[in-house]
Amino acid sequence: MHPQIVALAGGVGAARFLAGLTAVMEEKAAPDRLTIVGNVGDDMEWNGFSISPDLDTVTYTLAGLAEEARGWGLRGETYHCLDAISRFGLETWFKLGDRDLATHVFRTGLLRQGAALSEVTRKITTALGVRARLTPVTDDRLRTLVDSSEGLLEFQDYFVRRACRPEVRHIVMDGADTARPAPGVIQAIRTADAVIVCPSNPLISIGPILSVPGIRAVLVERRREGRRNAAISPLVGGRALKGPADRMMRGVGLRADATAVAELYRDFVSVYVLDTEDAASRGEVEALGMKTIVTNTVMRDQESRTALARAVWEGLGL
Amino acid sequence: MHPQIVALAGGVGAARFLAGLTAVMEEKAAPDRLTIVGNVGDDMEWNGFSISPDLDTVTYTLAGLAEEARGWGLRGETYHCLDAISRFGLETWFKLGDRDLATHVFRTGLLRQGAALSEVTRKITTALGVRARLTPVTDDRLRTLVDSSEGLLEFQDYFVRRACRPEVRHIVMDGADTARPAPGVIQAIRTADAVIVCPSNPLISIGPILSVPGIRAVLVERRREGRRNAAISPLVGGRALKGPADRMMRGVGLRADATAVAELYRDFVSVYVLDTEDAASRGEVEALGMKTIVTNTVMRDQESRTALARAVWEGLGL
Repeated sequence: MHPQIVALAGGVGAARFLAGLTAVMEEKAAPDRLTIVGNVGDDMEWNGFSISPDLDTVTYTLAGLAEEARGWGLRGETYHCLDAISRFGLETWFKLGDRDLATHVFRTGLLRQGAALSEVTRKITTALGVRARLTPVTDDRLRTLVDSSEGLLEFQDYFVRRACRPEVRHIVMDGADTARPAPGVIQAIRTADAVIVCPSNPLISIGPILSVPGIRAVLVERRREGRRNAAISPLVGGRALKGPADRMMRGVGLRADATAVAELYRDFVSVYVLDTEDAASRGEVEALGMKTIVTNTVMRDQESRTALARAVWEGLGL
Repeated sequence: MHPQIVALAGGVGAARFLAGLTAVMEEKAAPDRLTIVGNVGDDMEWNGFSISPDLDTVTYTLAGLAEEARGWGLRGETYHCLDAISRFGLETWFKLGDRDLATHVFRTGLLRQGAALSEVTRKITTALGVRARLTPVTDDRLRTLVDSSEGLLEFQDYFVRRACRPEVRHIVMDGADTARPAPGVIQAIRTADAVIVCPSNPLISIGPILSVPGIRAVLVERRREGRRNAAISPLVGGRALKGPADRMMRGVGLRADATAVAELYRDFVSVYVLDTEDAASRGEVEALGMKTIVTNTVMRDQESRTALARAVWEGLGL
């Protein structure tokens, strides 16, 4: 039997790792045995459209359509609609491309008709030829808010519009108390041969996923049963490769390094993947009760993604 | 005082005439004294967007942005969003360009917030630099349906999707019983120095405008008072220059010629503009109690549009 894998995923870092993981699973003829549980905390409404940036980044990357150098959106994208919208005085700081807009038109139409985000996501990934199963962690409304030096901000306002400049004091998961896991998510996590936390921001990418009631509990239960729960550090040498994870961690009073991320996951992660640059942290992490895998985690190209995924795969004994 | 003009307008034919009329009014320094009452019978919903094709054709033409050779949409338009939408299996027979979509995003957003179509139209025309005042005939829902050999069809389904192929038996103005004239429309018509019915399809462009309770009555009242109500024949030599007016007129049991259009307007039009090719119909039209202006009505370029508008302007003694 091919192993069944669940990955918890944010945006760009996760998408890159998943591109490697699906390549490894292709070799083993089982990419459809991967369930990706995606973050929806950074979802937003824009001029009537329902936008799910992290789900789309994963989808576009796995479909081979992503503008990888930039880290968001579609390759060869144009912005003619957005340019024209600016004439009407609407805000255009969220850079929506013409082809990307099609995804939002489709998603918004189905959501308005009453479809669940998980159903819509399945239709989008199927239409774009993604073989892995991608599901939002919840079909309910869950929004990451950033309490910052410029006030309580919606996530994309902080992240895109203000380019992560405000000092972060606290992260709020608005809606987490009542959000329910999307259909099949708990079951997929419970029965997976391995759960892998992708190299994503622990506060605003993985945090919202863990905030949905039931998710963390089933991960903790797996760990207690001795099942494989891995996480890949998103920090290398105390720096985020992409995004504001390091500054955010310091903002909320944490150290910004690989070990501090491991501490956030200590109740449920059993195998932690460190970059070779952080090999010296091995002892600290193992003192948290985790096994460690030390490998190159910096994904510059498809080859290094696949190499990372293979190291994790083999390190987990899959 | 510069004369105040009201034009009743459908799509392409009207837009071309209005481009000439505004040029004539520019010379006389009064393009802002033109109120255009636009058709909304061919409005449609498409994937959650509220689309007003006739209002947009007039707007884009007067803003100098229209793709004039083709007769719809914007010049230099791209269709990247629509191409991408087709991947999701959505219907894409209505050719929405990327820049055009911006107009629909803006309009739909404001309508959802509760704005009236007339307010939204004012914002769009202002943003695009149109000096004339364009207003939908009504802010209420009014839809032209076509009872045809292929059943009762929404207008754009008949017009675009089926390319006017079905035989037309009857035109239905759905919503006309309860539609109210948009703010200021009755007053503008009542007080105008002249009302001009543009060279538009009498059944599906001017018909919906006249179907709104109060519009026809105030036009009839003007005529009774001896005020100037003109109409320009959309048919030349028994043929529509653009669109299906001739076939539709035969379909509903009318003759398809300039005189038959004049008959449809006989209760309120006092001056009727015939193409030189139809000069022989002059007597028939005058027998309906109308004065006639015979001139070239075929608008191949801006020069011929302006010439037609000038002939009407002078024929009306403005």
